[in-house]
Amino acid sequence: MGIRAISGSVTAPRGFEAAGVSCGIKNRKRDLALIYSEVPATAAAVYTANQFKAAPLWLTQRHLTDGKAQAIVCNSGYANACTGERGKEDALRIAQLIAQELNIPVEMVVVASTGVIGRYLPMRRIEKRIPKLTSLLGDDDNGVAEAILTTDTVAKKVAVEVKLSDSTVRIGGIAKGSGMICPNMATMLAFLTTDARIGPELLQRLLRHSVDKSFNMITIDGDTSTNDMAVILANGLSGGAKINEGSGDCESFAAALDLVAGELAKMIAKDGEGATKLVTISVEGARTFPEAKQVAFVVANSDLVKTALFGQDPNWGRIAAAVGISGVEVKEEKLSISIGNLMVCKNGVGADFSMREARQLLSAPEAKIIINLNQGKQRAQVYTCDLSYDYVKINAKYTT
Amino acid sequence: MGIRAISGSVTAPRGFEAAGVSCGIKNRKRDLALIYSEVPATAAAVYTANQFKAAPLWLTQRHLTDGKAQAIVCNSGYANACTGERGKEDALRIAQLIAQELNIPVEMVVVASTGVIGRYLPMRRIEKRIPKLTSLLGDDDNGVAEAILTTDTVAKKVAVEVKLSDSTVRIGGIAKGSGMICPNMATMLAFLTTDARIGPELLQRLLRHSVDKSFNMITIDGDTSTNDMAVILANGLSGGAKINEGSGDCESFAAALDLVAGELAKMIAKDGEGATKLVTISVEGARTFPEAKQVAFVVANSDLVKTALFGQDPNWGRIAAAVGISGVEVKEEKLSISIGNLMVCKNGVGADFSMREARQLLSAPEAKIIINLNQGKQRAQVYTCDLSYDYVKINAKYTT
Repeated sequence: MGIRAISGSVTAPRGFEAAGVSCGIKNRKRDLALIYSEVPATAAAVYTANQFKAAPLWLTQRHLTDGKAQAIVCNSGYANACTGERGKEDALRIAQLIAQELNIPVEMVVVASTGVIGRYLPMRRIEKRIPKLTSLLGDDDNGVAEAILTTDTVAKKVAVEVKLSDSTVRIGGIAKGSGMICPNMATMLAFLTTDARIGPELLQRLLRHSVDKSFNMITIDGDTSTNDMAVILANGLSGGAKINEGSGDCESFAAALDLVAGELAKMIAKDGEGATKLVTISVEGARTFPEAKQVAFVVANSDLVKTALFGQDPNWGRIAAAVGISGVEVKEEKLSISIGNLMVCKNGVGADFSMREARQLLSAPEAKIIINLNQGKQRAQVYTCDLSYDYVKINAKYTT
Repeated sequence: MGIRAISGSVTAPRGFEAAGVSCGIKNRKRDLALIYSEVPATAAAVYTANQFKAAPLWLTQRHLTDGKAQAIVCNSGYANACTGERGKEDALRIAQLIAQELNIPVEMVVVASTGVIGRYLPMRRIEKRIPKLTSLLGDDDNGVAEAILTTDTVAKKVAVEVKLSDSTVRIGGIAKGSGMICPNMATMLAFLTTDARIGPELLQRLLRHSVDKSFNMITIDGDTSTNDMAVILANGLSGGAKINEGSGDCESFAAALDLVAGELAKMIAKDGEGATKLVTISVEGARTFPEAKQVAFVVANSDLVKTALFGQDPNWGRIAAAVGISGVEVKEEKLSISIGNLMVCKNGVGADFSMREARQLLSAPEAKIIINLNQGKQRAQVYTCDLSYDYVKINAKYTT
């Protein structure tokens, strides 16, 4: 396909700048991020399935009705969710200040937040730092990636370049996963940029497709935030022709977008709160993709499975029990379960396997569980992590 | 209603005996339990919703097709689930040996198991101890209640007496909740006895109703075992007339049965793996009972809510987020959340409350969360526990 990894993230595509500053929401850490395109960009976004959408999502949905945007501003620390009318006013005020500083219409600003739910944003602090934030715009991929984190232990960045028929196009992205500030809950945010030339409808379709295969296939704890959002800006500065649906270029671009989203998603799963390992739950032999996905998610969200994975315990009975309660009709006598290449359950009963080998496979930093339902040809793969003492520790902390 | 608590449990009703012995499945602890009625009893049962039903459930369903039983035998340590044909043969063999010793038809024996999934029962040990088990039959309510436990920290027993028009009827019960032996998964078992005279169809209806209001309203970790079972035997030895549907006696009996099942259910929730507190999640103001129940379960199964409860953290945003993703249509601006009598969220935004008071309320051994959706008159109450380090510790242990 001619896709290659390149350095940087959201400023790797031509015509994008970024910055991250601290405005004191999070103690001394960067907590205010800005991504800016020199020219108006085609924009697409997908939002949380939670019906209690946070104020910034409400505003962003309104601003993106014309499929155009030029800047993304995001604070970490407070989610600005469950904050009523005042929360909406605060989100709008931030957009207005950014628009003023950048000399662009307010509708061109995307707003995002992540952090504690139910607290009002410290607007005075945020307002005071916005001029500084815009003045720092440059190629600060590290600063912007850091400023959107909460309890994430590593910044999540990726960029690729893909050859199209008449040009090369770049796609960059940053993301944050599950985390808390002084408390909190998992918000998933992803901000992607590209210099491709592409219309808003096609971009929206490709983004939705990529998200369904990447961010929508990970789970840390089964809880869905009020603030989840993935946004892409395409500013067309690559110099190439417009990407049309069904073309070879469209296929190449989609593959590159899938790669960027997939890599960021895996980084999020691996850095789940308290996680000691990245776990791939692969369900094969399903009748349909939705059934495969459903089984994979029920297994991936089982606390009993996740604690066993933390304990490096090949307790496959818990996996079988989760499959049995998944809501998908499955024949017990057809079920097989493997840890990596080691089959631990065959035809619904225990296989003759080495406990030592199984433990060894589970002690690696990346583990794979393969569940074969043996009743069809569809498969789905979900990324998750284990459930450790640290998950409890991080999340039992007091909010104040 | 004239219901009063009495001492004992399954042998409190007239004509029932019980015993519990150790046959070496669990190290030196009692692991084989027997409940026996002097005369054939009307029997009813409800089973796990998990489609991978364990072998003993398969056998019990067959034996209860005629609505009659006289003995319940249960081992703890191994679940005899995911054990294929051999597992079924083992369950049948146990029933045969019990029937032989008690001189009753094999179809009168109910068989249950709880423990590790996917291991075959140590039949030689079990067979050897069955004569001893039957010889010990008596009023050993403690022995039988202990023998069905796995990681439960306390035995769960209850008995009541209820006045009917012409007699007093007794109902007794024992239960086990979430636990593991050397590993394991939560199995919920409840064995109830009564000396009431009642037909099998009415008994089945009343049991289903009681279970729906009690055992089906608790959750420890959202995982549903392959071995869950609640069984009731009614031997008619109270001396009273037969209980008919729609009568005042039926109402009194149903109320007593609800009480017994409800008490056992609460004991299970309170003794959940690693639990430090019993938590009641009460959802009010719902349009329908199923919607209230659905919201309550999504909140009760949220790891983020449960870890906050462990940390005595009044982080109501997590509760709101769980309500928002519950699948039930809810108006954010109508939502209120209280901890006990302390309102922490009103009309979808934070209420002005004392953090100190909220923490105090959450530090009690029993805590109550009230969620009012303010869109109807239905309510549901779910019992659960918090998610602590010990839950992870217990469940990360190695199976061997």
